[in-house]
Amino acid sequence: MRLSSMIFAVFALLSQAPAQTRSLAERLGYPADSKLLILHADDLAVAHAEDAASLDALDTRAVSSASIMIPCPWLTEVADYAKAHPDADLGLHLTLTSEWQSYRWGSVSPKDQVPSLFDPSGYLWPETGPAVEHIRVDEAEREIRAQVERAIAMGIHPTHLDSHMAVLFARPDLFAVYVKVAHEYKLPFLAVRDPNAPPALLATLSDKDIVPDAIVMANPRIAASDWKNFYATAIKNLKPGFTEIIVHLGHDDAELRAVTLNHPDYGAAWRQRDYDVITSPEFKKALEDNHVTLIHWSEIKKLLQ
Amino acid sequence: MRLSSMIFAVFALLSQAPAQTRSLAERLGYPADSKLLILHADDLAVAHAEDAASLDALDTRAVSSASIMIPCPWLTEVADYAKAHPDADLGLHLTLTSEWQSYRWGSVSPKDQVPSLFDPSGYLWPETGPAVEHIRVDEAEREIRAQVERAIAMGIHPTHLDSHMAVLFARPDLFAVYVKVAHEYKLPFLAVRDPNAPPALLATLSDKDIVPDAIVMANPRIAASDWKNFYATAIKNLKPGFTEIIVHLGHDDAELRAVTLNHPDYGAAWRQRDYDVITSPEFKKALEDNHVTLIHWSEIKKLLQ
Repeated sequence: MRLSSMIFAVFALLSQAPAQTRSLAERLGYPADSKLLILHADDLAVAHAEDAASLDALDTRAVSSASIMIPCPWLTEVADYAKAHPDADLGLHLTLTSEWQSYRWGSVSPKDQVPSLFDPSGYLWPETGPAVEHIRVDEAEREIRAQVERAIAMGIHPTHLDSHMAVLFARPDLFAVYVKVAHEYKLPFLAVRDPNAPPALLATLSDKDIVPDAIVMANPRIAASDWKNFYATAIKNLKPGFTEIIVHLGHDDAELRAVTLNHPDYGAAWRQRDYDVITSPEFKKALEDNHVTLIHWSEIKKLLQ
Repeated sequence: MRLSSMIFAVFALLSQAPAQTRSLAERLGYPADSKLLILHADDLAVAHAEDAASLDALDTRAVSSASIMIPCPWLTEVADYAKAHPDADLGLHLTLTSEWQSYRWGSVSPKDQVPSLFDPSGYLWPETGPAVEHIRVDEAEREIRAQVERAIAMGIHPTHLDSHMAVLFARPDLFAVYVKVAHEYKLPFLAVRDPNAPPALLATLSDKDIVPDAIVMANPRIAASDWKNFYATAIKNLKPGFTEIIVHLGHDDAELRAVTLNHPDYGAAWRQRDYDVITSPEFKKALEDNHVTLIHWSEIKKLLQ
């Protein structure tokens, strides 16, 4: 047996070993105790101010990954970026809600094929609660498949899936179709093995599914003055394993203020704060000082092929 | 016969007289030789920067009328304004095209019911030419009815109809359904009895239809430095009768620059120029000096009830 064949055989043997015997870090070629971090911008395509800030953060590697709201008005802007940057780590932020007061959107599927996704005003439900109360699972599945197919038709090669406003994590049957579609397209997806989650939801995840050990996201209890400190503490507290930090990046301008009208939580100033912190030299230094390894969903996707 | 009954009988007699025997000015209660002008902002709901400028111009009476693109993302913002300002003269800018590079929209009807309205990328056709080439008249009628019904459902009471990018003026059968729908809803509509128009198109208009004698709109041949002069000349040249001046108002900001990317004609700077001229004291003075009477589509709508 030639050396190259032997090496191939060893790799083949390794790849047949049960996934859980080797840490994700090892499978990706990093030391076993690495602090792996996906720094992830949500909500691309929702507004130009969101795209401008998020695509800038991708360009400067201030974030490692991002996901796109396919039903939203600025999809073409993001698809043009994706085509010009085929290595950009862009996933799909599967969207079954339309949450802002003055600026709304519908489904990708023809609306008569997914009527349970629509509120009485004729747009997607504005909140996770009524969405989860009204959405039929077959229509949710039709719509998330339509969003994946639309992304591909627009020239986007998604690296992962996640769920806008966590709608697809909020009912076990919705979670099941989310995982089913991810498996069919061989895409990794955001989830977390939270011991407090409903057993039916946890049972959907198999050992082969590679999901973060922890998810970190700013929340409305954090004062604006404490924003930097929140992220500095999050970086300091990162543990070996796989964490995703979710940020919402935007410019606090006339457009984004109008989009987020009357909703300071996740509003324009909030997104500007996220952008300012994430792109700051101090934040970059904190990642280095804490020996954080930024990874991409695309690396995890390769493990699934 | 009592006096009040006699007056009623005289009015009844007058209202039975053929419409064309009295000028529009007289029917609206103005001197017969009035220069009636509707100063009209197009494209509301296309972008927040367009809404902000146009609604401000309506508030300050810098324009007398405007029309709304019902399939566009910012419809809710304009509908909220319409509900708060029931006297605002707002019509429907019936929309069968989606013309910008990075920012697109679809139909109000479920897209599987109006497939000929969509280009291969899954949005409305970007230009009038391919739209007119591909659109089926039955689907155009379904969509414009859907736009009228959606507007009403959103709390808008339209005062008139017109046609985005003149698509509905560009084929006699499309013009015929536009006029048919306007008649059914008893709404006046924009058109002009242009002797150069196809005879089939002119034949669609009856003597009862009240349309402008002239339409004025800035065009790409006008240099930016000549903008004020173009409008000053237009005002000076207004003739007795009914004219509509169409303007496109917007703020030249990050959002509108991204909406109108790579398209300086009717772009963000163009719309800022229109806004600056129309809201200037000089323009207001020109209207006064030339004895122009600003009128509203709502006044004409009342004549049709």
